[in-house]
Amino acid sequence: MEQFLSRRAASITPYQAGEQPQGRDIIKLNTNENPYPPSPKARAVLQNFGGERLRLYPKPDGGVLKNAVTEVYGFGEDHVFCGNGSDEVLGLAFQAFFDGNIVFPDITYSFYPVWADLYGISYKTVPLRDDFTVPVDELVGDGVVLANPNAPTGIALTLSDVERLLQNNADHVVIIDEAYASFGAGSVASLVPKYPNLLVVSTLSKSHALAGLRVAFAIGQPHLISGLVRIKDSFNSYPLDMIAQEASAAALRDTEYCAAISAKVVATRERTTQQLGELGFTVLPSKANFVFVTHPQVSAAALKAYLVEHGIYVRHFNKPRIYDYLRITMGTDEQMDALIKTAAEFVRSISC
Amino acid sequence: MEQFLSRRAASITPYQAGEQPQGRDIIKLNTNENPYPPSPKARAVLQNFGGERLRLYPKPDGGVLKNAVTEVYGFGEDHVFCGNGSDEVLGLAFQAFFDGNIVFPDITYSFYPVWADLYGISYKTVPLRDDFTVPVDELVGDGVVLANPNAPTGIALTLSDVERLLQNNADHVVIIDEAYASFGAGSVASLVPKYPNLLVVSTLSKSHALAGLRVAFAIGQPHLISGLVRIKDSFNSYPLDMIAQEASAAALRDTEYCAAISAKVVATRERTTQQLGELGFTVLPSKANFVFVTHPQVSAAALKAYLVEHGIYVRHFNKPRIYDYLRITMGTDEQMDALIKTAAEFVRSISC
Repeated sequence: MEQFLSRRAASITPYQAGEQPQGRDIIKLNTNENPYPPSPKARAVLQNFGGERLRLYPKPDGGVLKNAVTEVYGFGEDHVFCGNGSDEVLGLAFQAFFDGNIVFPDITYSFYPVWADLYGISYKTVPLRDDFTVPVDELVGDGVVLANPNAPTGIALTLSDVERLLQNNADHVVIIDEAYASFGAGSVASLVPKYPNLLVVSTLSKSHALAGLRVAFAIGQPHLISGLVRIKDSFNSYPLDMIAQEASAAALRDTEYCAAISAKVVATRERTTQQLGELGFTVLPSKANFVFVTHPQVSAAALKAYLVEHGIYVRHFNKPRIYDYLRITMGTDEQMDALIKTAAEFVRSISC
Repeated sequence: MEQFLSRRAASITPYQAGEQPQGRDIIKLNTNENPYPPSPKARAVLQNFGGERLRLYPKPDGGVLKNAVTEVYGFGEDHVFCGNGSDEVLGLAFQAFFDGNIVFPDITYSFYPVWADLYGISYKTVPLRDDFTVPVDELVGDGVVLANPNAPTGIALTLSDVERLLQNNADHVVIIDEAYASFGAGSVASLVPKYPNLLVVSTLSKSHALAGLRVAFAIGQPHLISGLVRIKDSFNSYPLDMIAQEASAAALRDTEYCAAISAKVVATRERTTQQLGELGFTVLPSKANFVFVTHPQVSAAALKAYLVEHGIYVRHFNKPRIYDYLRITMGTDEQMDALIKTAAEFVRSISC
């Protein structure tokens, strides 16, 4: 029945999302979800929503969410684009700004090559250095996309590194994918007024514990925002439902709550980094809500399997250069205690 | 700043959605929204949702909505695809099944040529007959998309006409876009087991009064569903948020409520058709929640402007063949009384 597929559908290799195991006792550290619930203010929006209004179309531009972004980031409405999760926003941005010959690191979010293939955009990958840092000056092309902090390494660039990247690619759009910026790296949105080629993409999935609501936004100068709108309005005019718009706006405005849960995640990360180090793991210096780890005596695939046997899910990528690494999302301190205990058992069993 | 746009973003002409005027006293008959609120069972889902779970990713395949579709339509899970409104589902289907040389009527949902252009899919349009019926046997190509009932005409094909269309295009996918099927035409999903080339696309926006929730689904044989999944997983793995999945599932299962509000809309349509006829309008025989009308003495653009002055919004398309027509969505009986009264004033002023 392949006869019915288009050439593009037949040829692409889709993105492989992390498993979504179900079950009460599972410790899920494999898809970078926040271990804490979303802001009580966002949850209150649901209770008070009513729902009669749902018979009407939502605001096509994200409505109150857009307003919330302008308030929190201090940009005008013409600098903000809202979408159905950062995957959608990034997919639209690839279509809006890239024709081909784009660049991104060899080790990064594995959706980038998928979008490039789907939209027929040629790309080259630039190898990260041996320590998995980004060789900024080698990222030059007809478009750049960079996760900062990078995934799955967790390593972040400095603001001045990002500026150099923007200057090195002044004639082409540079997308900075900031999914994990709230856990220590900070946003580079302050560079938007200075760089007409900068598009910053942010999501509420991790920082605001709203993966289940599918909300993200981009910030850039108006000519970039209107480019995104052109593609959106040629695909799906109303990507964000009313409830998602309003609940996410409440979450975004609750900056205090976001800072508090981010600080807890960061504290857990520092503690976990130290504990894994004591077990002999090498832990890359992470500014994200996960750590990327390897161990000289331990097979990552074997450790992952052992953890699954004990109800703990982490992410292993079956890819060159990182085959011996695991990406571990920060859970609650209690969940991380279980992770450390189980990993320690495995390491001990190997050493015997 | 056009320099930053991709060739596709620079060249496309986006879809133009109907205006979304705001205001308490406005009578909004321009975007085919349902005048009645969504099912109380869907609204109850919001109140009881809680929201702590939103920290986790939703089911990538639509979860409980998918289950509800299988129950209501009687197909297996491998026959159902869920998405963020029928625009998204249709946009993904164009990518999954069409390479070029597709066909659709000259007068139909004006998003079809936009998707074709965005994805580089060549198309030809087949003129509707003078009475705006579809010349079924002329719709032959390497892919077909047809709204049934058609928009903005409201005219529906019979089930046997749709079968002929499927047989005439047996080697290519035929998409039947059923956004308005609940208002009298009925679904052609019963043909799915017999035709491996049939994809039926349905939305809850109109029939279930959930335009604000952005939920739609497609039904087809498993090889077509897996084609859609391939494209979805190459664009945005999780298009439907948790709340949209669960509230729409409750609405879809409440078949009694949907039938009741659809019957009210149909009764209003029949009454409005008669009243507009008495004013001298020609009203196409509609099976949708709107009527498409013209008047021998009245300029559609002038009537539209007059209605707007009186706070009543209807849709006018600035296009060949239908420039003298207006599309009027069915509101409540009270709203339609106001429409009829205001239109009568205008017709009378012309005749004097």
